[in-house]
Amino acid sequence: MDPLRVGLCGLGTVAQGVLQVLSDNAEGIARRAGRQLQVVAVASRTAKPEVDLGGATFSTDVLTLAGRDDLDVVVELIGGEDTALQLVETALSNGTHVVTGNKAIVALHGERLLSLASANSAHLGFEAAVAGGIPIISSLTNALAGNAHEWIVGIINGTSNFILTAMAEQGQSFSDALEEAQALGYAEADPTFDVEGVDAAHKLTILTALGFGAGFRFDDVYVEGISAIAVEDIEYARQLGYVIKHIGMARRRAAGIEARVHPALVPQSHLLSSIGGATNAVMVRSNAAGDTFYAGAGAGALPTASAVVGDLVDISKSSARLPRLPDGSATPLLPIDRVETEYYLRIPSLDQPGAFARVATILSECKISIEAAIQREQAGPSLDEGQWVPIVILTHAVEEQVMNRALAEVQALPEVVGEITRIRVEQLAVTN
Amino acid sequence: MDPLRVGLCGLGTVAQGVLQVLSDNAEGIARRAGRQLQVVAVASRTAKPEVDLGGATFSTDVLTLAGRDDLDVVVELIGGEDTALQLVETALSNGTHVVTGNKAIVALHGERLLSLASANSAHLGFEAAVAGGIPIISSLTNALAGNAHEWIVGIINGTSNFILTAMAEQGQSFSDALEEAQALGYAEADPTFDVEGVDAAHKLTILTALGFGAGFRFDDVYVEGISAIAVEDIEYARQLGYVIKHIGMARRRAAGIEARVHPALVPQSHLLSSIGGATNAVMVRSNAAGDTFYAGAGAGALPTASAVVGDLVDISKSSARLPRLPDGSATPLLPIDRVETEYYLRIPSLDQPGAFARVATILSECKISIEAAIQREQAGPSLDEGQWVPIVILTHAVEEQVMNRALAEVQALPEVVGEITRIRVEQLAVTN
Repeated sequence: MDPLRVGLCGLGTVAQGVLQVLSDNAEGIARRAGRQLQVVAVASRTAKPEVDLGGATFSTDVLTLAGRDDLDVVVELIGGEDTALQLVETALSNGTHVVTGNKAIVALHGERLLSLASANSAHLGFEAAVAGGIPIISSLTNALAGNAHEWIVGIINGTSNFILTAMAEQGQSFSDALEEAQALGYAEADPTFDVEGVDAAHKLTILTALGFGAGFRFDDVYVEGISAIAVEDIEYARQLGYVIKHIGMARRRAAGIEARVHPALVPQSHLLSSIGGATNAVMVRSNAAGDTFYAGAGAGALPTASAVVGDLVDISKSSARLPRLPDGSATPLLPIDRVETEYYLRIPSLDQPGAFARVATILSECKISIEAAIQREQAGPSLDEGQWVPIVILTHAVEEQVMNRALAEVQALPEVVGEITRIRVEQLAVTN
Repeated sequence: MDPLRVGLCGLGTVAQGVLQVLSDNAEGIARRAGRQLQVVAVASRTAKPEVDLGGATFSTDVLTLAGRDDLDVVVELIGGEDTALQLVETALSNGTHVVTGNKAIVALHGERLLSLASANSAHLGFEAAVAGGIPIISSLTNALAGNAHEWIVGIINGTSNFILTAMAEQGQSFSDALEEAQALGYAEADPTFDVEGVDAAHKLTILTALGFGAGFRFDDVYVEGISAIAVEDIEYARQLGYVIKHIGMARRRAAGIEARVHPALVPQSHLLSSIGGATNAVMVRSNAAGDTFYAGAGAGALPTASAVVGDLVDISKSSARLPRLPDGSATPLLPIDRVETEYYLRIPSLDQPGAFARVATILSECKISIEAAIQREQAGPSLDEGQWVPIVILTHAVEEQVMNRALAEVQALPEVVGEITRIRVEQLAVTN
């Protein structure tokens, strides 16, 4: 069979990783793909670095490369949004298959891009857009295709997980842990995108679309980052049997699909709790397969390149195995107000008799039941002065809008002397 | 597009699970597959049970069904070897695609069956043959296709893992834990196949063939079960920081591929250690993706049915994405003599000065270095009488044949008063 002719747009670390993987593992790849995979052209908007292109031509015009008629596949690894989107649209319109690692353009324009691919009999692969080298897109699209899913939950931002792990293991504050992550290359100079949850929300949008046929609705995903997590919450959570993780959760409810990114308490005994550092993990609860769990490197040049090459092998073998357009007409994404979870609450309170009782009364009036509580005799670790104590409460499941009303009342109590901290709890109980 | 016409051979629990999944999840399956999946005929050698066949015809002649010309796919779920093999060969020879969950026939005849499939432009899917609902075959074949693997290790027999977990958590003996497993339906009345490692070796044969292009060489896989594991070894292992698991390991070495099934000490901190009960897990170390980890239900009607339906969806979408024939000419499987691992040794020894020194001297003369040792003042938990103590030693890595020679000498020492226990150790250190 003729080699698969690949055009590579971008020549950053991931693109260089793709060249390296295709070269190092050429023999095994050709065996599994049934043909050679050959990069015939590379384009990068910046000057060519000292990289062996293995005979491929080089240019600085990525859009011209994307429009060439003599390529089977264009690989988009330039990053960013505008030019990347234009590039992908150019190739797909031309009937050229596309493989991309660009989570932002898939999360924001996935429906349009998959429609364009379909209309031009081209394939769009984006395994590299979610959780690096973990084959979660392929598993949802193919091996798990026989299932209806109850939920998909993931630790899908390595930076946030690295920071939370450092805070838990070394007792560091958020800002110290962030500084360490930056020094070690796990966080960008401007870390907003990662620590405020936008990156995880891009990925969750994609998982939600594929897992629930819910369309690519990034704007409907609830997003909360980790910058407000305090070390004492991690410690209280530990005493209660939990670890705080930054998760993306997509969950089918009767009224629609929850899609939300936020910190959550996860039971210490759960596999997700043992995922430390920059590692990623995804767990899927399905009506036939039961719980399946996937973990691995969520970023990095070679793991991401592994996912890109996996998509290239698929394209080289198959006429139609990459993700199909979800029908988009499925049940809606629920607003966060309607989402039901358990809660961890930390309420800074005057050390007076009756303070806990007043809090408990408000919760009870709102039909929020208490699962566990910690009340300390002396001041909690965050309090520098005065007669304050933290009241720590785990609740049973309640709708977010109900909790909002209850906490507004609790916050207004004269005994409550500081801002209430609340973090959602995910039990993720094992069913099989 | 026309529906995919499926013939189902077998009507046991997994086959009934397939009918249920195809019916319960019909809408999502059709969306992902791009067409309806329709079971048009069912055959089972025994009388038809009270099962809704959804309009499919029923017969008791499985071979005639397999030879029909009007089916796109035959699903083989009758189990056993002879008839199942004949059935699969009949269908493939006829150019009909086959999906099977039969690990024995794939492990023993995989090369011939994949050749037959290829010669007749048919596909052979066997995701259900390894680790139930965990998409490990699909991941090795597609998403990880860009990688060369260093090793593939798995907990791939749920019965053995259930028994070892019960022994570790409840201090049960092997025979008590086996009895409990049988009472709960996790072990067969004749458990030999599971607890002596044959089932795991079938699965490891398949993983080795797909992961290393090594051919399906079941006869070259080293097989050791768990029936010799004593509770005190689990306890000593715990003190040393390890958990005893029954694993399948395929590992690339310079001289060839190790493929071996046996109990092993695994570090407590490793993800594999947290896989308890009947759950399965596989970890793959690859040169691009790094370490990826997969866990889920390794058996059961619905998880296995999920894998079968995943293969049906693949067949309905694609012309060639199921596993290809490995080239079989790759490096050989190594005999167990040539395999190099670390060891845990428990040596029942007279409680005399110098006993440990004599053992250490023999190991040292054989160039086996000691990583850790436990020497107890009083009798160990397994000793009923007399002045015996167990000497427990962890060694650094050494070739099996060297360890065999050393242990023959140690066993012959006058101070050694019982049979030496040895269990391999797998550190599986994390690289990313």
